[in-house]
Amino acid sequence: MRIDIITCLPDLFEGPLTQSIVKRSMDKGLVELEIHNLRDYSTNKHQNVDDYAFGGGAGMVLMIEPIDKCITGLKEKRDYDEVIYLTPDGETYNQSIANQLSLKENFIFLCGHYKGVDQRVRDHLVTKEISIGDYVLSGGELAAMVLADSLIRLVPGVLNDETSALSDSFQDNLLAPPVYTRPAEYKGWKIPEILTSGHEAKIEAWRNEQALKRTEERRPDLLG
Amino acid sequence: MRIDIITCLPDLFEGPLTQSIVKRSMDKGLVELEIHNLRDYSTNKHQNVDDYAFGGGAGMVLMIEPIDKCITGLKEKRDYDEVIYLTPDGETYNQSIANQLSLKENFIFLCGHYKGVDQRVRDHLVTKEISIGDYVLSGGELAAMVLADSLIRLVPGVLNDETSALSDSFQDNLLAPPVYTRPAEYKGWKIPEILTSGHEAKIEAWRNEQALKRTEERRPDLLG
Repeated sequence: MRIDIITCLPDLFEGPLTQSIVKRSMDKGLVELEIHNLRDYSTNKHQNVDDYAFGGGAGMVLMIEPIDKCITGLKEKRDYDEVIYLTPDGETYNQSIANQLSLKENFIFLCGHYKGVDQRVRDHLVTKEISIGDYVLSGGELAAMVLADSLIRLVPGVLNDETSALSDSFQDNLLAPPVYTRPAEYKGWKIPEILTSGHEAKIEAWRNEQALKRTEERRPDLLG
Repeated sequence: MRIDIITCLPDLFEGPLTQSIVKRSMDKGLVELEIHNLRDYSTNKHQNVDDYAFGGGAGMVLMIEPIDKCITGLKEKRDYDEVIYLTPDGETYNQSIANQLSLKENFIFLCGHYKGVDQRVRDHLVTKEISIGDYVLSGGELAAMVLADSLIRLVPGVLNDETSALSDSFQDNLLAPPVYTRPAEYKGWKIPEILTSGHEAKIEAWRNEQALKRTEERRPDLLG
């Protein structure tokens, strides 16, 4: 999998993309990820990438020209399966979309900032618009990190134990059951006895029951 | 507003929290934000904070003791309005929750990692559980950043132009209308004529119409 991220705030990606599973997946050669500074594609000497909105109003808008130049340059190097714009009015992201996207190879993620990008970018250059949730962030950068993280962990070989992703919440439309670790008693708070019983089948049944109960209580919508 | 973030991967926060509006809000003295490394509260010499799950199965679980020590230490210094655990099976976050939470003062954000935290942490130490969306991430760190960013931008004085947050998507249950900036024509793609008409009232009416149309097409659920 290859992900190219276009942003006007590349420094935001320090940390998230140089640590944890993203870093490990890159070291293993399973994932390539490159950050592109939109300002490098500015057409003026002040490296501006935004301007006032036509028609007035608060907030700046990212211009089409630098974005087009950057995307065109990338497309000359390879084919892309999707050019994804991260925006709160995009399709609401979920694990099912993550699973589908994770089968594709090459992505461009475009991060909005300020009031977003010129609408013509969305009409002509973007193939998919994704929202990570119904809330507003100061830019698309955190959304791009969320998208990258959720996809990269689905690439075969990235997680140490492949069963690990399959037992996560949402993969079977159930929330995950409660988990406990040592000590078995802490400040008088004990773990459920079944977990130290050694009966594998009973433990599995208890977990399924707990996962179902939690889903019924918290997210009955997932059960359809 | 004060946010204390507890994590076993503090380096992930480099970048997101030292840049952009988070940094500016801290420089202005409007927000305090501190990252706490869970390993500093480990009770053994290897600085372990996770252990195998009781009952077996893939994935590690964060232990209660270091988390309890860290939270207890923080609570000795000040009162907290909420201790929020970021988890995919928490309450689904949205702008309405963001608005409510933004009125509070002191927060602890607890980041899960691996298979999550010992259930007793959730039963006894956490006051609120939040999910940023129906997908699985490699840890709660990105979710904590999303939560922090969405809250901090609502603190009065953080955004330069206070009208800017009010005209965002979701604040009035409508998606934002399309925006355009210079040039007015690019590769034959033109902006809507109305935006250069100079008729302020007509532009406002067009924007409202476009916001409603976009919401009807993409997110009819928001219109109730």
